[in-house]
Amino acid sequence: MSIAVDTFFLDPSAVGTLQARVQQMVAQGILAGRFRAGERLPSSRKMAAHLGVSRITVTLAYTELVADDYLTSRGRSGFFVSENAPEPPAFPAKRAQVGTVDWSRAIGQRFAPGLNMDKPADWASYKYPFIYGQADKTLFDTANWRLCALRALGMRDFSAMTADYYDGDDPQLIEFIARQTLPRRGILADEDEILVTMGAQNALWLSAQVLLNSRRMAAIEDPCYPALRNILDQSRCQYTPVPVDGDGLPPDALPDDTDVVFATPSHQCPTTSTMSVDRRKALLRKAEEDDFLIVEDDYEFEMSFLKPPSPSLKSLDQNGRVIYVGSFSKSLFPGLRLGYLVGPAPFIREARALRATILRHPPGHIQRTVSYYLSLGHYDALIRRMSKAYHARRQVMDAALKEYGLNVAGHGTYGGSAVWLRAPDGTDTAQLSAQLREDRVLMEPGAPFFASETPPTEYFRLAYSSIPSSKIAPGVRLIARALAER
Amino acid sequence: MSIAVDTFFLDPSAVGTLQARVQQMVAQGILAGRFRAGERLPSSRKMAAHLGVSRITVTLAYTELVADDYLTSRGRSGFFVSENAPEPPAFPAKRAQVGTVDWSRAIGQRFAPGLNMDKPADWASYKYPFIYGQADKTLFDTANWRLCALRALGMRDFSAMTADYYDGDDPQLIEFIARQTLPRRGILADEDEILVTMGAQNALWLSAQVLLNSRRMAAIEDPCYPALRNILDQSRCQYTPVPVDGDGLPPDALPDDTDVVFATPSHQCPTTSTMSVDRRKALLRKAEEDDFLIVEDDYEFEMSFLKPPSPSLKSLDQNGRVIYVGSFSKSLFPGLRLGYLVGPAPFIREARALRATILRHPPGHIQRTVSYYLSLGHYDALIRRMSKAYHARRQVMDAALKEYGLNVAGHGTYGGSAVWLRAPDGTDTAQLSAQLREDRVLMEPGAPFFASETPPTEYFRLAYSSIPSSKIAPGVRLIARALAER
Repeated sequence: MSIAVDTFFLDPSAVGTLQARVQQMVAQGILAGRFRAGERLPSSRKMAAHLGVSRITVTLAYTELVADDYLTSRGRSGFFVSENAPEPPAFPAKRAQVGTVDWSRAIGQRFAPGLNMDKPADWASYKYPFIYGQADKTLFDTANWRLCALRALGMRDFSAMTADYYDGDDPQLIEFIARQTLPRRGILADEDEILVTMGAQNALWLSAQVLLNSRRMAAIEDPCYPALRNILDQSRCQYTPVPVDGDGLPPDALPDDTDVVFATPSHQCPTTSTMSVDRRKALLRKAEEDDFLIVEDDYEFEMSFLKPPSPSLKSLDQNGRVIYVGSFSKSLFPGLRLGYLVGPAPFIREARALRATILRHPPGHIQRTVSYYLSLGHYDALIRRMSKAYHARRQVMDAALKEYGLNVAGHGTYGGSAVWLRAPDGTDTAQLSAQLREDRVLMEPGAPFFASETPPTEYFRLAYSSIPSSKIAPGVRLIARALAER
Repeated sequence: MSIAVDTFFLDPSAVGTLQARVQQMVAQGILAGRFRAGERLPSSRKMAAHLGVSRITVTLAYTELVADDYLTSRGRSGFFVSENAPEPPAFPAKRAQVGTVDWSRAIGQRFAPGLNMDKPADWASYKYPFIYGQADKTLFDTANWRLCALRALGMRDFSAMTADYYDGDDPQLIEFIARQTLPRRGILADEDEILVTMGAQNALWLSAQVLLNSRRMAAIEDPCYPALRNILDQSRCQYTPVPVDGDGLPPDALPDDTDVVFATPSHQCPTTSTMSVDRRKALLRKAEEDDFLIVEDDYEFEMSFLKPPSPSLKSLDQNGRVIYVGSFSKSLFPGLRLGYLVGPAPFIREARALRATILRHPPGHIQRTVSYYLSLGHYDALIRRMSKAYHARRQVMDAALKEYGLNVAGHGTYGGSAVWLRAPDGTDTAQLSAQLREDRVLMEPGAPFFASETPPTEYFRLAYSSIPSSKIAPGVRLIARALAER
């Protein structure tokens, strides 16, 4: 039996090359049971004419399908659905009826709304995307990344890609972090003091779970990274938000009964201020006096284009009180989800066991790709390129903010990727943000960063990590105009 | 100033091509501060002679380093460390002194030893690797996987790879799972009823966290996947291990106050038995009567080479009581860490929020690669190839077990990738396993699968997923000999 050519159509939502789409169309028809073993496909000439593609496209797609044994070729008779082709299931798919479960009761623990980030997925289509923490296509070094990924896909690395490491990590990546990445932050660590994580988020979560419980007390910066509060809620601990000043977290304001402090000394999130070396030392002294631990989120330390980065808090710590959180997701791209945790071996042992229970280990292929990208020097070259671009954008940003009279509430003395601003009293920057989207401007309201249930509504953040230089001044002008009109 | 050629040496532990290793050597010397801006590198001729590599290798490495701005080329004068080369940190790296923290007290929650799997990383070097759950190089379709990964690395997919999805997933993968993968298991689900996870382990963990708490009661199969007990320990619930029989979990044996049942109907782990359709219906009836939920781990349903797979438990569930766990890590390779969770929208919403807090989302590039691999039909072709190979191996295995008189305690009527065996009474298969490693035989003792603190020591598992057919009979012979000698 021949399959009629007009039962074929190219799915308009399908992606990839035309050849790939033809291949998908035929494979899916077989998998869904529409085409059965032994049936003859339309000739490549007929199919090509019907779909409006070239004949060679159809022939190549058919040939690929022969290789995967979906089709067989019988010379001049044409192509047939293979006798070995996958078979559709023998039973129909059903949707559950209206359920009998009361889900408001069945759920044992609630976590929603969780991150609750109001950032549009189509941010790149905005004309003035002052969005924070997304990759910039124009800066990322895709060519070398692809080469490293390709190398990590080779047969030589088959085991690194495919193996179940159980609770382990790629030894090559761990060795590089220990020998090259950490020394550049002033840190020396052994292999059993390092754990690869699914980005900084995962590293912070693991730290909180291991160090805290319902009887422990944490301290966080206020304002701070909002997801950190979700993380602490899950650890069931008590926590105190401590207001930051222009020098970051003030050690003297920490409650006496603090067990664990979460801090961002390099660039305080979101105010971008950098903690001075004197204050770092004071914080470490206080940790020793009051017997608390510090989780240092060293994000964006690489983006120190105005001054060389100061040593990490951990490098100043002589007593093993600092747990260090680093991330490649920030500097490479957030979709990578790769970071690391550095701390004393007894701590890392617990974090490793917990990580194994929740997900085993970060994917091997990604670990190996990053390991190549780092060891070949591409990573540092990328950081340098990004720093230069950020530096130029920052200068444009500073000038524009001055020109249009916006009030800077915090900007990193070392660099960073964003500026923290304050609108006139009474402004609701969430409303402002919604209104500015109509002008194709993306900016970030500041209220979610604050711990209070009645947070100040005047703050907002403008990042320059994903916006071209030429769009910064006109974007700032639109923001200033919207503020003036309120 | 020129850098003396004899300060260079190729790190014997470095990996990659010779060119990559030369490139690494120079880049790392610059990053570590051993070579400073303006210093001249040895000529390619000298360097090549010193390292014992070809001159073109050195020239190509130098050229790559020029592209990344580590070096500059000054025509005939040679190559110099670039003025723009990354600089080493201005401070030395230090190791923390002996710490002042009492870690036995500082740890708030313990998770170690966690997985505690005694499986050697070098399993592939064993002659008779009856190891479970690792990828077989000879069966995996590396070429098409690499093509899909490469496509997902293209600029067209830049955003899918790099974007911070926050709490979201790759829409293309979700659509494929909803439209193609799940219908083949008899399941229809909307997009808000599906969540991508870091493998089945992560899906089980998320389910336990959302559905259980310290006041809830779970039931698990006994024996069962050992990490499931770690997962339940973390959810702080009570749980009852229910002994399985040749037809899997007996519904009548479930305690009346059960809130959530974890089951593996397709291939009970580790006994490999398949639950009959009658028992599946009885289990669902019981769930409705006693008002409990079921988490169905449908692992290895694809490996049904003896009979077509039976419908999933979820496809028989008319009341929305089944949460379904699927995995690509098993059939593609475990290092992938990719699975999915299917359930009612209110449940998925909580699981999504929890996943976002612990890790945000599985890496975008991996999701997109799998999406291509699936949609082009390679996945089903791979499954078919694996099924054929497993079928052949299983026949050899069954014959060898019979010939050498080993006692089969369970083997999947549908297929699977392992056989569950019972040694003579009193045998300690952990000892047996240690002893057999000296004969280069890898087998898995059964005790860790049992919930009891004094588990039976006679059981063991032999998988045929990673062992060549030709090695099965001689491997079984060695096991039989070791058993006879005890």
